[in-house]
Amino acid sequence: MKEVVLHYATYGKLNQKRDNAVLVCHALSGSARIADWWPEIVKIFDPKDHFVIGINLLGSCYGSTGPRSIDPDTGSIYGDSFPVVTILDSVRAQKILLDHLGVELLQAVVGGSIGGMQALQWAVEYPEKVSKCAAIAATPLSAMGLALNHLQRLAIFQDSDWNGGRYSQQPEQGLTLARAIATCSYKSADLFQQRHARLSNRNGDSPYTALKGRFDIAGYLDYQGSSFIKRFDAASYVSITKTMDTFDFEKIYGSEKEAFQRIKAEILLVGVSSDWLFPAKDVKALTTKLKEYGVDARYCEIESSHGHDAFLADFHLLIPALAEFFEYKSNLLCSQSMPC
Amino acid sequence: MKEVVLHYATYGKLNQKRDNAVLVCHALSGSARIADWWPEIVKIFDPKDHFVIGINLLGSCYGSTGPRSIDPDTGSIYGDSFPVVTILDSVRAQKILLDHLGVELLQAVVGGSIGGMQALQWAVEYPEKVSKCAAIAATPLSAMGLALNHLQRLAIFQDSDWNGGRYSQQPEQGLTLARAIATCSYKSADLFQQRHARLSNRNGDSPYTALKGRFDIAGYLDYQGSSFIKRFDAASYVSITKTMDTFDFEKIYGSEKEAFQRIKAEILLVGVSSDWLFPAKDVKALTTKLKEYGVDARYCEIESSHGHDAFLADFHLLIPALAEFFEYKSNLLCSQSMPC
Repeated sequence: MKEVVLHYATYGKLNQKRDNAVLVCHALSGSARIADWWPEIVKIFDPKDHFVIGINLLGSCYGSTGPRSIDPDTGSIYGDSFPVVTILDSVRAQKILLDHLGVELLQAVVGGSIGGMQALQWAVEYPEKVSKCAAIAATPLSAMGLALNHLQRLAIFQDSDWNGGRYSQQPEQGLTLARAIATCSYKSADLFQQRHARLSNRNGDSPYTALKGRFDIAGYLDYQGSSFIKRFDAASYVSITKTMDTFDFEKIYGSEKEAFQRIKAEILLVGVSSDWLFPAKDVKALTTKLKEYGVDARYCEIESSHGHDAFLADFHLLIPALAEFFEYKSNLLCSQSMPC
Repeated sequence: MKEVVLHYATYGKLNQKRDNAVLVCHALSGSARIADWWPEIVKIFDPKDHFVIGINLLGSCYGSTGPRSIDPDTGSIYGDSFPVVTILDSVRAQKILLDHLGVELLQAVVGGSIGGMQALQWAVEYPEKVSKCAAIAATPLSAMGLALNHLQRLAIFQDSDWNGGRYSQQPEQGLTLARAIATCSYKSADLFQQRHARLSNRNGDSPYTALKGRFDIAGYLDYQGSSFIKRFDAASYVSITKTMDTFDFEKIYGSEKEAFQRIKAEILLVGVSSDWLFPAKDVKALTTKLKEYGVDARYCEIESSHGHDAFLADFHLLIPALAEFFEYKSNLLCSQSMPC
């Protein structure tokens, strides 16, 4: 085992009772600085009253040890020799950090997507440490989810700049394509249709006559891809998608039953009606299983055309469920959004 | 305009009345030899009684003029200077061929996916020439369909072997990835889950510990991709996916109303319950529009977990609808499958 660095950010202070800590787990391309990418969550857990913690995932490119870090054994970049990090590995590392910060109990652990995987893993692995756990649009990946992650990594590996993750110039084309594939799975077909339909690209392309003439949706995907490469690293993308893949209770605890019977926290699972990557029916089925094994679990579904991305793009729809679950009142709770 | 070659295959003979011709239009990677890739259709339209015709699409790599053909103006391979071929272009070329063969009326034109696009285009463009038209899992592509085609072409263009389509060794990695992306859209998430779930790849990979260790679904997709490159050409793949993209009645006829009011044929549209690329609801909505504009159109939906591929993989489910529509009786019509 080698030493790792965890980059973290905290908002507010731990109170004397040490019972006001909230861990917010980030999704694939997020960072420890949760107020930057999920500002609404810091309104729900106001740092005046809460000690809110964000921790950058192992494997990420935002400060924690990742594949572009130096391997102390070789003095060179890890690249593709960076170990596969499981969700459990990351959560165990987070636990060491929280111990160091003096956190004895998490009042709440919350996250969406791979953030939700971490939240659930916390509830299973450290049952005494978690009071409430909310996981949004998160289950172990289905075969289709595993398929799409595989193809995204393949796009990166096929880029001649990949070089086993030991590049000077990152594999931009591969990462662009990977992000574009992912975007198709993060959004819904209905949203794409509403926004782009069969329109020609807004910059004046001619998709009916030119081989590389694009429809508007293609221009959008290219834009998503090329924006992403400015802020994210390909080797981290490979590493974190692998981390997502590994989330599997049976694998760690022998069976879902053995895993779920450990849980003492109250659990809220939220599904998104149009989520294609983590279908609502799978989130609902996971809730049913949790209940079967005695967990105090509840399910809420939000109606959104934003697909998987709804936990960020339609956050206001989440507020009633989160407010009810965390017994919290807020002026964020507007009349538009209905409790589940 | 340049001369083109159309590769075609016929089964049976044109009768004296010249009223027994059936055109079977192939899907993306099919060929004129329809009995090879859709043998059941030649059982429905028995060559004893029918003159069945298959024509290789312009742009394909199975005999018709495509991007790997020699451009007579330059004496070199077309490559990416091969013109964008619309569905209408292909259908017009097919019409010239059928005139040459002495076919005055198509008793039936039938196809699935891009084959269904051609069938519908026939019914609109040559209303006097088509008696019955059956299009399975086909509508103009939605924004998501356009998105996925774009990403597949991008995968090919990004391969350093692409070389503007003027390669000596085809861009195998890009075409493999393109086919793997397509396979995710041809099948359904439920089918992937039933068949592969979260199993490790059957050849002994370790997806939980090795960066390139694969789950079974990943092994399946890689296999689909690497088999495909042995039988298909990357430049043709680029060309034909563009052809799919161009299928759009408004674009050609000014409006759907103007297009559909031309139709004189009876139309059968078939949707597949689990089709993600051409959702059943879109096929149904197209039927409704056809009816609105006075077309004798009917809709049938088959329940299959095979997704878009069901028109090939679950052909037996189509038989009742086709038999009823084409007023045909067959021992293929088994008790398992119910008329729509």
